[in-house]
Amino acid sequence: MRASEVRALFAVVNRPEVVSLAGGMPYLEGLPLDTISETVQRVIATQGLSALQYGSGQGHEALREQILDVMHLEGIDAHPDDVVVTTGSQQALDLVTRIFVDPGDVIVAEAPSYVGALGVFRSYEADVVHVPMDEAGLIPEALDACLTELRAAGRRVKLLYTIPTFHNPGGVTLSLERRARVLEIARSHGVLLVEDNPYGLLGFSGDPIPAIRSLDEDGVVYLGSFSKTFAPGFRVGWVVAPHAVREKLVLASESAILCPSNASQMAISAYLSTSDWRAQIKAFQVMYRERRDAMVSSLAEHLPDATWTVPDGGFYTWVRLPEGLDSKSMLPRAVTGRVAYVPGTAFFADGTGADHVRLSYCYPTPERIREGVRRLATVVNAERELVEIFGTRPALDDVSDVDNPGPDLA
Amino acid sequence: MRASEVRALFAVVNRPEVVSLAGGMPYLEGLPLDTISETVQRVIATQGLSALQYGSGQGHEALREQILDVMHLEGIDAHPDDVVVTTGSQQALDLVTRIFVDPGDVIVAEAPSYVGALGVFRSYEADVVHVPMDEAGLIPEALDACLTELRAAGRRVKLLYTIPTFHNPGGVTLSLERRARVLEIARSHGVLLVEDNPYGLLGFSGDPIPAIRSLDEDGVVYLGSFSKTFAPGFRVGWVVAPHAVREKLVLASESAILCPSNASQMAISAYLSTSDWRAQIKAFQVMYRERRDAMVSSLAEHLPDATWTVPDGGFYTWVRLPEGLDSKSMLPRAVTGRVAYVPGTAFFADGTGADHVRLSYCYPTPERIREGVRRLATVVNAERELVEIFGTRPALDDVSDVDNPGPDLA
Repeated sequence: MRASEVRALFAVVNRPEVVSLAGGMPYLEGLPLDTISETVQRVIATQGLSALQYGSGQGHEALREQILDVMHLEGIDAHPDDVVVTTGSQQALDLVTRIFVDPGDVIVAEAPSYVGALGVFRSYEADVVHVPMDEAGLIPEALDACLTELRAAGRRVKLLYTIPTFHNPGGVTLSLERRARVLEIARSHGVLLVEDNPYGLLGFSGDPIPAIRSLDEDGVVYLGSFSKTFAPGFRVGWVVAPHAVREKLVLASESAILCPSNASQMAISAYLSTSDWRAQIKAFQVMYRERRDAMVSSLAEHLPDATWTVPDGGFYTWVRLPEGLDSKSMLPRAVTGRVAYVPGTAFFADGTGADHVRLSYCYPTPERIREGVRRLATVVNAERELVEIFGTRPALDDVSDVDNPGPDLA
Repeated sequence: MRASEVRALFAVVNRPEVVSLAGGMPYLEGLPLDTISETVQRVIATQGLSALQYGSGQGHEALREQILDVMHLEGIDAHPDDVVVTTGSQQALDLVTRIFVDPGDVIVAEAPSYVGALGVFRSYEADVVHVPMDEAGLIPEALDACLTELRAAGRRVKLLYTIPTFHNPGGVTLSLERRARVLEIARSHGVLLVEDNPYGLLGFSGDPIPAIRSLDEDGVVYLGSFSKTFAPGFRVGWVVAPHAVREKLVLASESAILCPSNASQMAISAYLSTSDWRAQIKAFQVMYRERRDAMVSSLAEHLPDATWTVPDGGFYTWVRLPEGLDSKSMLPRAVTGRVAYVPGTAFFADGTGADHVRLSYCYPTPERIREGVRRLATVVNAERELVEIFGTRPALDDVSDVDNPGPDLA
């Protein structure tokens, strides 16, 4: 394992003088902390003997029922037995990979893809093959061609890993028409589709988009999470899987952690049954939309030579820098300029992507977002001058150098 | 993976008519639920933005400081940087195995050993080689001979996994003299020692025994847990490891779960700083000692032909059944007789151990323990008669048949 680029960034995110457009932390100040604290207090006072005890490896039954209500908003019909609660959906990703993937197996994923998933896939020694997206998400023809080619090459493709809705980091959404087509292609190649959907309910216009899982219950493993729609601090996510897979997931999870936290699960269960969680999600949608607006209007104002996606939900926009810039080598200078982003290279298994950055608008306020983009533009413009004078600047070996800033970063 | 024997047992544990001497659930009724619920309420009301947010992959810093105080009771000197907080110590076990063990590697463990560890080792395709214990724990000469033999056979031994204090399921404790000797043997064979110590503070006489980790900080990976000394429902354990190992553990944990729950960690941290947790542990010691006494005096009364260990702490006694009985094939009949135990076979990687059962005295009250042992004696006596008439009864293929009880169990 290597120190990830995201790790290096965490070191700078918390410096107050830096505007971080890097992290994926949800903005929690809108949550009613008093109400939540009283809800949790009641759970422990009245059901403490069970909240503080070991629980089921598959997860708390009442919560699994409520998860069905959450998923119903995206058209998913399932049974509580189909749900396995995990320590965040990251654990679900880890367990699914553990069960299916042997070293050298191929996992197909969007180009770019979630950095945390790439880390899991790497840890199980999978080969990730990226398939391009456009503004309507994963391109079915490219997927089909890729899977055909891999088969011809004798490669064993185990999973298609996709974030169809409000993609991280791509900021795009797989169109409704393509959902059925992508599913059909995966099925025809005998590849299990893993649908990672932490942001699906955080759309900025209209009703939630039906999940791919709503179209098929046998060929899809669905990952959900309360981290973005409620709070990540309880570490509660879930996976919905076909029967045979789900049994293996429960056994693998018991081996990994015995059982998920009853205290966390019962706290979230009580929150769902006593609060208007749908209204809370609507409030998050309004807040994040305002931040998305601040992000894209600032980009238009300050970085007119870049291009970016305009997400209709979620936390991120994917920005192509002006020609000739390298987002990885530029990062230390950006931090000097008091703004942080994640270089595009973090989102590719093969180290490409240096012409892009991921900008997140979830955590900073709209004013800070605008200030961050303004600072980024200053860095970009200075970098372009240097490139014009000296040619392309050399890439650093590892962005984790930021952990040990040299004098020019002090 | 296969359905574990413990899984089969969970199906019967919760039937109120069954006295379960099977599970390892701590008895939580002694905990001050009102105080704990108010403590957690305050954490979320006053520090909710951090308790409900993502946290550090290594764990909450204040809690890691407090963990040092806990470990100090067993003579361990460490730095907060040495500690990695995990989702129960089960996750620590999983991560350590993930980092060190390749398929076919050997892990040496006591005979018998913790069923949950054997499950983890199996999931990483390790070969477990058991080394015998006596009433003073792991036998150093046997360990040395075993490691020598494995080396001569060209086997790659990665870990010595040991539960030196109040062994699960063995009920014995590695003597002080042997601790240094076992450590020395592991070191001389270049084998990392994994010290699993969830019960160390739950001793029934005198001061806590110094942990093996207190003797050496480089050759030992130490696993700790709040599950038995406070409550398992928060799923908070930890690992203390040498520098290079610890960095790998953090990366592996981030890949597996991103970060442990801030809410859980801050709840425990607040409990430790506002409650007299040492007095609570003393109360647990008194309660579990009374139950241990009930267990061993009932065994003496009702099962004089069996032999058992007399634990000086922890949750379990390890009982050798009278000659000729098979604890695995007897289990369905025990459940019919309204008593449950874990057959000895669960604690061996090679399926041996059918002449033993693990009896736990942690959860049932002393009266229920006595009733459970009385029932067990009835089952044992009936079984002996059958064995005398018909010879050894055939073993069932898998105890998980208990999940689908036939008519004679209904």
